[in-house]
Amino acid sequence: MCAWTATAEAHPNIAFIKYWGNRDHEARIPSNGSLSMNLAGLVTRTTVTFRPDLTADRLVLHGREVEGPALARVSKVLSLVRAWSGLTWHADVRSENNFPTGAGIASSASAFAALAVAAAAAAGLDLAPQDLSRLARWGSGSASRSVPGGFVEWLPGTGDEDSYAISIAPPEHWALMDCVALVSTDHKAVGSSQGHRLAEKSPFQAVRVADAPRRLDVCRDAILKRDFEALAEVVELDCHMMHAVMQTSSPRLLYWEPATVTVMQAVRRWRQEGLPVAYTIDAGPNVHVLCPQGAQEEVASRLRALPGVQDVLTAGPGGPARVVA
Amino acid sequence: MCAWTATAEAHPNIAFIKYWGNRDHEARIPSNGSLSMNLAGLVTRTTVTFRPDLTADRLVLHGREVEGPALARVSKVLSLVRAWSGLTWHADVRSENNFPTGAGIASSASAFAALAVAAAAAAGLDLAPQDLSRLARWGSGSASRSVPGGFVEWLPGTGDEDSYAISIAPPEHWALMDCVALVSTDHKAVGSSQGHRLAEKSPFQAVRVADAPRRLDVCRDAILKRDFEALAEVVELDCHMMHAVMQTSSPRLLYWEPATVTVMQAVRRWRQEGLPVAYTIDAGPNVHVLCPQGAQEEVASRLRALPGVQDVLTAGPGGPARVVA
Repeated sequence: MCAWTATAEAHPNIAFIKYWGNRDHEARIPSNGSLSMNLAGLVTRTTVTFRPDLTADRLVLHGREVEGPALARVSKVLSLVRAWSGLTWHADVRSENNFPTGAGIASSASAFAALAVAAAAAAGLDLAPQDLSRLARWGSGSASRSVPGGFVEWLPGTGDEDSYAISIAPPEHWALMDCVALVSTDHKAVGSSQGHRLAEKSPFQAVRVADAPRRLDVCRDAILKRDFEALAEVVELDCHMMHAVMQTSSPRLLYWEPATVTVMQAVRRWRQEGLPVAYTIDAGPNVHVLCPQGAQEEVASRLRALPGVQDVLTAGPGGPARVVA
Repeated sequence: MCAWTATAEAHPNIAFIKYWGNRDHEARIPSNGSLSMNLAGLVTRTTVTFRPDLTADRLVLHGREVEGPALARVSKVLSLVRAWSGLTWHADVRSENNFPTGAGIASSASAFAALAVAAAAAAGLDLAPQDLSRLARWGSGSASRSVPGGFVEWLPGTGDEDSYAISIAPPEHWALMDCVALVSTDHKAVGSSQGHRLAEKSPFQAVRVADAPRRLDVCRDAILKRDFEALAEVVELDCHMMHAVMQTSSPRLLYWEPATVTVMQAVRRWRQEGLPVAYTIDAGPNVHVLCPQGAQEEVASRLRALPGVQDVLTAGPGGPARVVA
């Protein structure tokens, strides 16, 4: 290897069973297991270069140098790679997304998955998949789920060693489509890392966490059987359970905008009329509308016609994070 | 008395601590206590006339004869009055509201409070206030709270005899204003009586009920001390706890419309800017925006300027249900 450099790509993911709240905020050991699908076509591409001449890590996002908390999160992952590899150099990190950042499309998931995979490769580490997932988790909890491919479950574990994500089915298993109705591309007022700390302040979080293994069983089963109806029910319930926790924490978090409700009410009406659709919403106002392949053009066209919907991105199941150069 | 007739008026009320779910659906014994303010200016006026020539009870709303479930609910209250008075005649009931029906302004509360008071008077019954509240409760749970005046607490009790509402402070105690932002005057798809039966299907209802005595204490204390800041916090939390239960019951109930979120987000912003405002939402899309007297013109004017707000009704604390003729 002539240079300590590598480039990796990773997809964001949409959680069907949500991650909200930590048992350990530092190591991001989650309060409950979660389950998601990677989103093909939406990509973060990250290049990590370890260099002997750097006195500190550098982060360049979309060509602009970034410091402060974002750089500190990146450095935490890089420091783990240095500890595991014995390498002592600092790194230059350059990253780009092909989709809007910070509006509920989990850009931190693809960002830290790509970072973990690129940094490990650049440092010459040959890590097992679950160790790459653990590494990504230190930067962003949901990033642990963007490391494996297809349909992914994050086993919550009890500590750093056993808290990682695994693939429960490859992308080819089920051509499920996610039509993301963008109702805002503004940066959200309260980021997820801060929000996770508020979860325990809701009177509903304990119940949500205690019931999570049941919802995970129902969701995993629905995916393995390709049962859209069963998936729709549990995904919408889980979405509302997370937003109920958010809306009753202290301070209360209301991530929805008017058009978020427009889309939810429309999806509900369409399903009653027989169209196979279901919605879920991350920590932001955009609505992810799921449907089986074949329905996505009709769904995207209907979504675009709703007031307040600015654009619709459509994605099928995506593969794992991987080194591309 | 030359005719077995009486007319009564009652106000709707806005709940600060909500009623949602019953221990006994038939007698409407609630799962938790609740606390509300009557709304002056909004009035249901009802005339009950017992007549020897009628072969069944008759209900005329706004000049139109009504049968079916609405008449059956009215007859249940009339039958209790007959049982308590010994009177056997059927009754003619005529009722009118001066505000829109069925859109989350608790028209059933004022309707059954006025009915209970008018029917008891028409039958010559001299009931204690708590017995009038019990009587109204058989028609609509929240109607029990529209019988006493001002700021009212419904003591949940364990059965018919001890489940009634009492006034905790008269209307003159605190000039609190409710600016009701009407975002829809459509009839709601799922009425409250049906919704109460779904509450127990939410994984959050048990927690909501268990925590209710604490919220009631905080709310009662805030009212007695005229502490708007404390009232605002507990009212908004309680509102979101009820809607969380609704949104996670099976089937899920989403009473909100896009403009409901518009108003919630605006109220939150205004409070951060220093305007004393808080919101609460009943089983419907309209948003009740509370403020101390003096701020209501500014609040109503700001609300009217929001997209999706069709009208704003403003009401201060109202008196008890009473016989007017």
